Amino acid sequence: MIKLSLVGIGSGNPDHLTLQAIRTLESADLILLPRKGDDKTELADLRRMIAQDILQTTPQIVEFDYPVRDAATPKYLDGVNTWHDALAAIWGGLIARHAHPDGHVALMVWGDPSLYDSTLRIADRLTAQGVNIEVSVVPGITSLQMLTAAHAIPLNTLAGAVQITTGRNLRDHGWPAGAETVAIMLDGECSFQHLDLDKYRIWWGAYVGMPIQLLIEGPLVDVHAEIVEARASARAQNGWIMDIYLLRKM
Amino acid sequence: MIKLSLVGIGSGNPDHLTLQAIRTLESADLILLPRKGDDKTELADLRRMIAQDILQTTPQIVEFDYPVRDAATPKYLDGVNTWHDALAAIWGGLIARHAHPDGHVALMVWGDPSLYDSTLRIADRLTAQGVNIEVSVVPGITSLQMLTAAHAIPLNTLAGAVQITTGRNLRDHGWPAGAETVAIMLDGECSFQHLDLDKYRIWWGAYVGMPIQLLIEGPLVDVHAEIVEARASARAQNGWIMDIYLLRKM
Ligand SMILES: C[S@@+](CC[C@H](N)C(=O)[O-])C[C@H]1O[C@@H](n2cnc3c(N)ncnc32)[C@H](O)[C@@H]1O
Ligand SMILES: C[S@@+](CC[C@H](N)C(=O)[O-])C[C@H]1O[C@@H](n2cnc3c(N)ncnc32)[C@H](O)[C@@H]1O
Repeated sequence: MIKLSLVGIGSGNPDHLTLQAIRTLESADLILLPRKGDDKTELADLRRMIAQDILQTTPQIVEFDYPVRDAATPKYLDGVNTWHDALAAIWGGLIARHAHPDGHVALMVWGDPSLYDSTLRIADRLTAQGVNIEVSVVPGITSLQMLTAAHAIPLNTLAGAVQITTGRNLRDHGWPAGAETVAIMLDGECSFQHLDLDKYRIWWGAYVGMPIQLLIEGPLVDVHAEIVEARASARAQNGWIMDIYLLRKM
Repeated sequence: MIKLSLVGIGSGNPDHLTLQAIRTLESADLILLPRKGDDKTELADLRRMIAQDILQTTPQIVEFDYPVRDAATPKYLDGVNTWHDALAAIWGGLIARHAHPDGHVALMVWGDPSLYDSTLRIADRLTAQGVNIEVSVVPGITSLQMLTAAHAIPLNTLAGAVQITTGRNLRDHGWPAGAETVAIMLDGECSFQHLDLDKYRIWWGAYVGMPIQLLIEGPLVDVHAEIVEARASARAQNGWIMDIYLLRKM
């Protein structure tokens, strides 16, 4: 049986690596390294740097390209499923070609593999396709943790509930009932603009944990335009952006 | 100005430490180390082990006891606030006695300092009391991340919302509208028993990340009694327990 380790590497800085992540990568025979596609080039570079400069061992590295995501597929989930199938087929092919039948294969996953990430779902497909693997997960520091650390704030209010959700969910369903705090990821549209601006405070961050990190916080009514502007100009300047934010009732 | 670093150390295993956490602790002049009180002895021991065996430097270590929490205070929050005040006073005294006015003081925090933890609130009180400190946070692997990693499951469903909340909130308010997944912490009462058992699947873990880790998962209707029993007997055997679980609509 092949052991497949999904290793969280944190959110943009090799210092986010845990000792467990380093040891797991060091004990791998083969590391599959996505070159580009879904990810930004910077992220592929960070993975390569970790493999080359941080590990004390030299597992075999096999780089591969992501398939192009079919945005034209009518239903969002169908598109995602087809894309996961395609990725599972690629992983399966690489594992069959490069790994021993009882080898240890590792993949570096941005942030934590459990948080809005597809690697666990792709690994499940591999198993469903009959590939004989045992999946194990090494947690990593998430972008949400980097956001709260950078602002030096708690995630939750005292004994209060926190909802983690997407920009789309916030736009479609508004503020989730019962939550004192909402964390938004995967938002390309500054969806906070759809809320009642007077009611919330925001802690926003882009490229959190990286040298180019940007942070803005304040009452939503005061800072919403500033964030929209900062996001657009950072994106134009760097060619890509990843941002995340926390909202709290005032 | 004194620099106060709140350093997340993960959830029960020194391998959860990040390189950033190790470097921050190594660069501290003084580490304040809670001996007992709110925490279990095992947790104090882990902190002491990290300070003595993992760090390559030898910052001064000052151990201290937590004040006893006044459970008799009528209103829950008043009790917590009084207790935070008492802790802030203790930290302030220790810092005044043992730290240079421009020194670097560090505290090791269980899991991540932003998640259901009081250290950030206590540090704020210290500032409010006029102590001249700058607080910085180093994230750590949370017990929730250890839970999803141990079960090798994603936290969220595809693009779905996740609510993180307490056992008390689940009992008082039921399943939070809009959430596909609910993560429960701080639950001394197996509050999942109050839900409609037929509707949910549970992934439960106690002492996650530790050698004595316990895991149970399945449809709530099938495993709820088993969890209640396992929890009671583990608690009796070890003298303490910490558990956490994820629930998902079926
Ligand atoms: C596909 S998800 C991956 C999340 C990742 N698994 C984690 O644990 O953070 C991508 C989203 O994470 C957030 N994100 C990831 N890295 C980030 C960073 N360095 N700064 C800001 N947001 C980030 C953004 O909201 C982005 O849309
Ligand atoms: C005061 S909170 C601290 C949480 C911590 N800051 C974190 O990031 O995980 C304590 C709660 O965390 C959970 N917890 C912490 N460590 C745990 C462990 N090793 N196993 C299971 N649950 C744990 C339990 O739900 C417990 O009631």
